[in-house]
Amino acid sequence: MKALVYHGPQKFAWEEVPDPKILDDTDAVVQVDTLTICGTTLHILKGDVPEVTDGRILGHEAVGTIVAVGSGVKTRAPGDRVLVSCISACGRCRFCREGRFGQCLGGGGWIFGHLIDGTQAEYVRVPFADTSTYPVPEGVSDEELVMLADILPTSYEVGVLNGRVSPGDTVAVVGAGPIGLSAILGARMYSPSHVVAIDLAGSRLDAAKRFGADHTVNNGEHDAVAFVMGITEGLGADVAIEAVGVPETFELCTRLVRPGGRVANIGVHGKPATLHLESLWTRDVTVTTGLVDTYSTPTLLRLVASHQVDAGAFVTHHFALGEMEAAYDTFRRAGETGAIKVVLTR
Amino acid sequence: MKALVYHGPQKFAWEEVPDPKILDDTDAVVQVDTLTICGTTLHILKGDVPEVTDGRILGHEAVGTIVAVGSGVKTRAPGDRVLVSCISACGRCRFCREGRFGQCLGGGGWIFGHLIDGTQAEYVRVPFADTSTYPVPEGVSDEELVMLADILPTSYEVGVLNGRVSPGDTVAVVGAGPIGLSAILGARMYSPSHVVAIDLAGSRLDAAKRFGADHTVNNGEHDAVAFVMGITEGLGADVAIEAVGVPETFELCTRLVRPGGRVANIGVHGKPATLHLESLWTRDVTVTTGLVDTYSTPTLLRLVASHQVDAGAFVTHHFALGEMEAAYDTFRRAGETGAIKVVLTR
Amino acid sequence: MKALVYHGPQKFAWEEVPDPKILDDTDAVVQVDTLTICGTTLHILKGDVPEVTDGRILGHEAVGTIVAVGSGVKTRAPGDRVLVSCISACGRCRFCREGRFGQCLGGGGWIFGHLIDGTQAEYVRVPFADTSTYPVPEGVSDEELVMLADILPTSYEVGVLNGRVSPGDTVAVVGAGPIGLSAILGARMYSPSHVVAIDLAGSRLDAAKRFGADHTVNNGEHDAVAFVMGITEGLGADVAIEAVGVPETFELCTRLVRPGGRVANIGVHGKPATLHLESLWTRDVTVTTGLVDTYSTPTLLRLVASHQVDAGAFVTHHFALGEMEAAYDTFRRAGETGAIKVVLTR
Amino acid sequence: MKALVYHGPQKFAWEEVPDPKILDDTDAVVQVDTLTICGTTLHILKGDVPEVTDGRILGHEAVGTIVAVGSGVKTRAPGDRVLVSCISACGRCRFCREGRFGQCLGGGGWIFGHLIDGTQAEYVRVPFADTSTYPVPEGVSDEELVMLADILPTSYEVGVLNGRVSPGDTVAVVGAGPIGLSAILGARMYSPSHVVAIDLAGSRLDAAKRFGADHTVNNGEHDAVAFVMGITEGLGADVAIEAVGVPETFELCTRLVRPGGRVANIGVHGKPATLHLESLWTRDVTVTTGLVDTYSTPTLLRLVASHQVDAGAFVTHHFALGEMEAAYDTFRRAGETGAIKVVLTR
Repeated sequence: MKALVYHGPQKFAWEEVPDPKILDDTDAVVQVDTLTICGTTLHILKGDVPEVTDGRILGHEAVGTIVAVGSGVKTRAPGDRVLVSCISACGRCRFCREGRFGQCLGGGGWIFGHLIDGTQAEYVRVPFADTSTYPVPEGVSDEELVMLADILPTSYEVGVLNGRVSPGDTVAVVGAGPIGLSAILGARMYSPSHVVAIDLAGSRLDAAKRFGADHTVNNGEHDAVAFVMGITEGLGADVAIEAVGVPETFELCTRLVRPGGRVANIGVHGKPATLHLESLWTRDVTVTTGLVDTYSTPTLLRLVASHQVDAGAFVTHHFALGEMEAAYDTFRRAGETGAIKVVLTR
Repeated sequence: MKALVYHGPQKFAWEEVPDPKILDDTDAVVQVDTLTICGTTLHILKGDVPEVTDGRILGHEAVGTIVAVGSGVKTRAPGDRVLVSCISACGRCRFCREGRFGQCLGGGGWIFGHLIDGTQAEYVRVPFADTSTYPVPEGVSDEELVMLADILPTSYEVGVLNGRVSPGDTVAVVGAGPIGLSAILGARMYSPSHVVAIDLAGSRLDAAKRFGADHTVNNGEHDAVAFVMGITEGLGADVAIEAVGVPETFELCTRLVRPGGRVANIGVHGKPATLHLESLWTRDVTVTTGLVDTYSTPTLLRLVASHQVDAGAFVTHHFALGEMEAAYDTFRRAGETGAIKVVLTR
Repeated sequence: MKALVYHGPQKFAWEEVPDPKILDDTDAVVQVDTLTICGTTLHILKGDVPEVTDGRILGHEAVGTIVAVGSGVKTRAPGDRVLVSCISACGRCRFCREGRFGQCLGGGGWIFGHLIDGTQAEYVRVPFADTSTYPVPEGVSDEELVMLADILPTSYEVGVLNGRVSPGDTVAVVGAGPIGLSAILGARMYSPSHVVAIDLAGSRLDAAKRFGADHTVNNGEHDAVAFVMGITEGLGADVAIEAVGVPETFELCTRLVRPGGRVANIGVHGKPATLHLESLWTRDVTVTTGLVDTYSTPTLLRLVASHQVDAGAFVTHHFALGEMEAAYDTFRRAGETGAIKVVLTR
Repeated sequence: MKALVYHGPQKFAWEEVPDPKILDDTDAVVQVDTLTICGTTLHILKGDVPEVTDGRILGHEAVGTIVAVGSGVKTRAPGDRVLVSCISACGRCRFCREGRFGQCLGGGGWIFGHLIDGTQAEYVRVPFADTSTYPVPEGVSDEELVMLADILPTSYEVGVLNGRVSPGDTVAVVGAGPIGLSAILGARMYSPSHVVAIDLAGSRLDAAKRFGADHTVNNGEHDAVAFVMGITEGLGADVAIEAVGVPETFELCTRLVRPGGRVANIGVHGKPATLHLESLWTRDVTVTTGLVDTYSTPTLLRLVASHQVDAGAFVTHHFALGEMEAAYDTFRRAGETGAIKVVLTR
């Protein structure tokens, strides 16, 4: 089959590789019908994730059709159409028992395109198929569904739920790239009074408006802290969601929140940040970090199926599987192309 | 009357000052029967808290007898014996409505010995007397009660409850001074499996054992992280409580917790700390900060009255009010004197 | 002044009475600008609430202008326009400290038109004015605001929050009178997948659609349990909200919920219901009851001010204050008049 | 092998039956080393549980040694010593994903001695062995461990956690049989101020004292409501735990709780109860029901292993497996024999 194979920093190719096979009796093999590209994979391509080694097939998001299952798979069968989640779950370890699948101790967690071959291929081996795939509900398109593989549960669990967004809240979202936009969409489910999107790029702030931001602040030009204080009687935001992944934006979040507020970090960080405990220690602030667990995926599936959430809104570009390299190019140059999520279909 | 008056860094004296009077109709004047000294006041004496100015009477902990009340005081009367809490609450603002009295926007919060004259005096004016004092329950001694003015609710709310200590947890308490010991006592109320006290001083670790630590680690001599990993199957503590207030101990806490764990900061910090987001971003860690609100004071009063909590265990030394300077000396030289809390009585 | 005075079952009149005066220093006197009529008052008129005695002025909902304050009122002044809440709060007792104002032990709770004279008058004495009124925010009309005096916080706290409505939930609301409609509006704030309104009257079900119900079931004609099972894979609703107040509808709620579901009772009950513990004991069901506390009023004010909640949607009829009796007649004959909430203005 | 076989109401015998075999690849066969008898089984013997049919082997609590595993069992192996839980979990269904294993939709839940053959035998087939057994920790005896098969997690989850017992609470436990005693032990983990045991039998109340009740009330002789009001300033208990299973005791619980209190039902009920909504509707009361999920079993194992919980305290009588009928006789006549839990060992 064909797959997107990593060959070290900045080197990858859509090339012929052997078809995947059932290795463990709880595996399924899934024909990939629809996939998307995640910003995390761009980090990998830069060489930022050393666990990813030469020869690894990339990608951790797909919708597809099961073509084979091991003897230990009980609730999935060939022909089933499924969402392949970015998180695999052994279903047996302490953390899986607690619904904290992202921290699975039994061989799961984030493994696709990381520790095992991923989904950017014609076929993919899916470990723990019973507990790591979701049947496709009726009336939902593949391109909506593939947004539930990573971006929607990540922003919802790690941003919205960790940040305890509640009705009437003022929510500041720092960073209006795909994950920030998804956090805005997720925050809106809880009827906040104000969602403020903060970014350096006007085009991303325009997108933020479309995804439900009430206010946008270009923090290259304006003082985001002053803006948020201005609409909150000088107290600050109830929740600040970090969706960039650099120290400056994290530190901005800690200045944006009110006493008793929450800072929910979603960003993928490569460097430490400074935590100003000399001012924060009295302010009753909660800071959370997290990898997605996908415990919310069934909820999000219900919301997409009942048309409460428009998952398709992220999709700006379409490609065929064989156009993988062009798709990456479009996604990488989002500033010029306006790409939010690109979708590839068989 | 006599009072302990601050005159700038390292200067203070037990000297004659005018008696306090009712200034607002919700004030009470309380004769101080019993008081204690808090580590925060030592910070003030070093000049670390610039809001405290020359002439200020220090102290924010007392048990006493009401001698006068303003016309707006409805539920307290002269002759009532009361606990004077370190936190005053206007009872009307947004944060008071939410039980977040420490963040009171109506003139309360931590004001005694800080923004107004404090309790280390023969008499003290107590604003918002209805909502900032607690009637003394029967069968509880003054010296037990005065521990509920600050140290017990602080460690309980900001350490134990913010850290969500739960039955079966492994709890690491970094710092075994008075506030750390109080956090150990508070954590025990939730039946953890293991409480690990970590400190550089053997004498404090001995005290930690007496207050309920199952394990002690001198982290000048031993690797505290390795110890905690060793008793938690390599995962880390469920909760790490910071009870020192320097960057190193805070950063130690973030290395001690397991994925999904909580770091509850109690320490008073003067400098920023480094938050290693490059490793923490995937680990589902929650970090909390906080000033005490004293919402738990009624609960703690019930626990002391029903002898579930031995508040008297903190008291190592007794003095008369007039021996204020000697009491400070003993408290300051805790390393030599073994002082945990010193109590002064009329 | 003129006021609506109760004279025993079925007897009341808009008649001349003495003007109210400040009795306690924390009182305000408020000129009533806008008021509405609550279903609870219809119960009183039937004689169902024996605490209400001959001579009592009825009503517990108003928006008005402060004309006088006692010396103990700190944060309100004559000329301030305020929402007068159905719940008064002393601000000092145990339950007020916990935000459970409806259970106030210090003389508050539900007292207007019940234990003291109420708001259906030209002027009303408001005890504990600092903690029982809310300043009118800019840009919100009186008729929107008066919906926050009772109906909106009641349905939100006692129905939506007690029932822990969450994104993706299926919510069954039994009873589509004013309080049920308000529960539908409140539930929508949490982005449920399905809101099912259940009632015997087609006109109320039509209103339910307008307030956001996705599905309506006339349970005189159809089997509501079967309908809900049909859209929930046979499991039942996540939340069932009782908004009628008779045993049959409560018992229906306990049959509508899934294992692990919540039954939130809002209805005012005059008789006991049967709790089928022989089937419920294994089903992990939570049943809640409650009187509104109005702890959510500040949140709801923010939501109305930011136009997230259309509080005006309830208002079907307008009257002048002097048309009180006609207004009652219209509200009472809601089946014919289509009245949801009637508003009276000075 | 020998097993205790049910043959219709009041008929059962310790008799020869075929050895169990692996039927599904996720099964294990476990040699039973230690078991106990549960009150629920007495209900079965009366014929109260019609799903249990002639020929069924009874029992749902055991500690044993694995002798065989199916090919799908990944984390258990022959020779492993394990706790066999009363609840089986498929590990794949919606409710298992949420930790609500007692409501398993995939063939688990309470099945032993109910829908499949149980543990009162020399060997038992254990479905879903990976997710339904727990490795025996070091330093814990079999007789302590077998208390974690049902009684301890049931009283802890369904009584203590559903009732949200918190430090300082007054907890009323109605019924001081084995499950009530276990609820007392569990409640103590949260440092309540007062635990009040209520029962008709003096011998059970004596046991309640030994398990940690501060107060006991014989409600055949004294008014339990008056007693609880007397120690709670007339408010009532924070939590009332129903541990009997008849309408009278449930209704007593609803009278014992304070406004804002919780009634946690553990009792197995055969008849409906009356819920006095006419008085409860204003009182902010939460009523919970539940079947144990055993999500707390890992926590309880840690607590027993660290000697925070004395699970052995329940064991009053010991028998050999072959003395099954004598053991039942002793357990049944608890009033005379003083039996709390009887333990049988190979």
